[in-house]
Amino acid sequence: MCHTIKLTIEYDGSPYAGWQLQPDAVTVQGKIEQALRTLTGEAIRITGAGRTDTGVHALGQVASFQCSRHLPLKAYRDGLNTFLPSTIRILESEEVDETFNARYSAKGRSYRYVLSKRDRAIGAQYAWCPDYSYQLKTMKKASRYLLGEHCFLSFCKRGSEKGEFMSRITSVRWKELTEEIHFEISAVRFFHNMVRIILGTLLEVGRGRFSVRDFRDILDSKKRENAGPTIPPNGLYLLKVDYD
Amino acid sequence: MCHTIKLTIEYDGSPYAGWQLQPDAVTVQGKIEQALRTLTGEAIRITGAGRTDTGVHALGQVASFQCSRHLPLKAYRDGLNTFLPSTIRILESEEVDETFNARYSAKGRSYRYVLSKRDRAIGAQYAWCPDYSYQLKTMKKASRYLLGEHCFLSFCKRGSEKGEFMSRITSVRWKELTEEIHFEISAVRFFHNMVRIILGTLLEVGRGRFSVRDFRDILDSKKRENAGPTIPPNGLYLLKVDYD
Repeated sequence: MCHTIKLTIEYDGSPYAGWQLQPDAVTVQGKIEQALRTLTGEAIRITGAGRTDTGVHALGQVASFQCSRHLPLKAYRDGLNTFLPSTIRILESEEVDETFNARYSAKGRSYRYVLSKRDRAIGAQYAWCPDYSYQLKTMKKASRYLLGEHCFLSFCKRGSEKGEFMSRITSVRWKELTEEIHFEISAVRFFHNMVRIILGTLLEVGRGRFSVRDFRDILDSKKRENAGPTIPPNGLYLLKVDYD
Repeated sequence: MCHTIKLTIEYDGSPYAGWQLQPDAVTVQGKIEQALRTLTGEAIRITGAGRTDTGVHALGQVASFQCSRHLPLKAYRDGLNTFLPSTIRILESEEVDETFNARYSAKGRSYRYVLSKRDRAIGAQYAWCPDYSYQLKTMKKASRYLLGEHCFLSFCKRGSEKGEFMSRITSVRWKELTEEIHFEISAVRFFHNMVRIILGTLLEVGRGRFSVRDFRDILDSKKRENAGPTIPPNGLYLLKVDYD
């Protein structure tokens, strides 16, 4: 009999060449599959809900896999954690319906980008500090245009433009803390580099290079070259993945 | 003419073999002296207020040095930061009286130890998570015995017991956050491993291996072997150094 297992995973993206398995690089998926092989004795392929890039972190990545061995559920969490490096932690393991697929069953994803208000020595790999000043107020205003259904070609890595680029942004939140600004965004789906280009463009609004109105025009133009730069990966976190 | 400069420094201790200069290891002092040589063209020896161990961080380390070249004060901060790795940041630079010595002029030091409430993938190098549960209430109670003047031989690394071990603890503070517990302690001086052994012993109280009364007896016994273990360096931060 086959068991379908869902894992919720936290990881520090700094030491990894992203989520996705690669033959000659250390990746999060690779590390988890290796730990699963040690734990179960089976060669298991896992599917992640989001393919985070090099240096991008996760507080709630979700992965699923099928396994013929029946192990106590706790083993997938505590057992895997024993074999995984300390920078990857399984937070939860649960048995789910056999039709569940972490990627295709996902109904929405949320990301957080952490901007640091100062150039810091401790935790520089967990936030990005722009070397210019910016006004949060205009960025907040511009970000309202993101809500709802749009074509996100302007905010999508060039070369990845195949198929359609429609998505629906369900929420945009800003949190101002003492030393950090958090930008949180939820959508049905995200395209390659989307959050980093969106915030990179909002920062151009914040520093006065684009107006709030320009931001809307950039979104509507469906041209990547009109948008701002792709900001660094180290401030980005895959926060959570929603299922029915 | 000679100038005496005081630097306030933040660093991530994870990649360094501690503060103090060593011939065959990468240390914080070594990195700063190297950057000073690049900046000024002079071979400058700096003195740090506290010699943090491998893996120990600093939010407000202080160092001083003398320099014959006259550079604008800002150069010591912004200039040094250009030549330093991102894990070491000069927060402030000021010219001080020629009698100032970061180590000998210090009137007090404060340390913070960060306990993580859970085993985390992100920032594991910045906090320590005990693999047992403990009661904060009894730890707080026991920690009150630390206040005032005592001989700290019980809480001092073996082999470093030369001279006298008197110090005065001026403050002990506990802060409970969502995911962390902060233990902050201020004293006129600290001995080798002192904060890590004090909190290691308080945790033994918290888990019920020692009573609150035992803690006082351990302090009075002046014997290192009676105290708890030296907990890991990664939760420890040199918070600030006080001068007149």
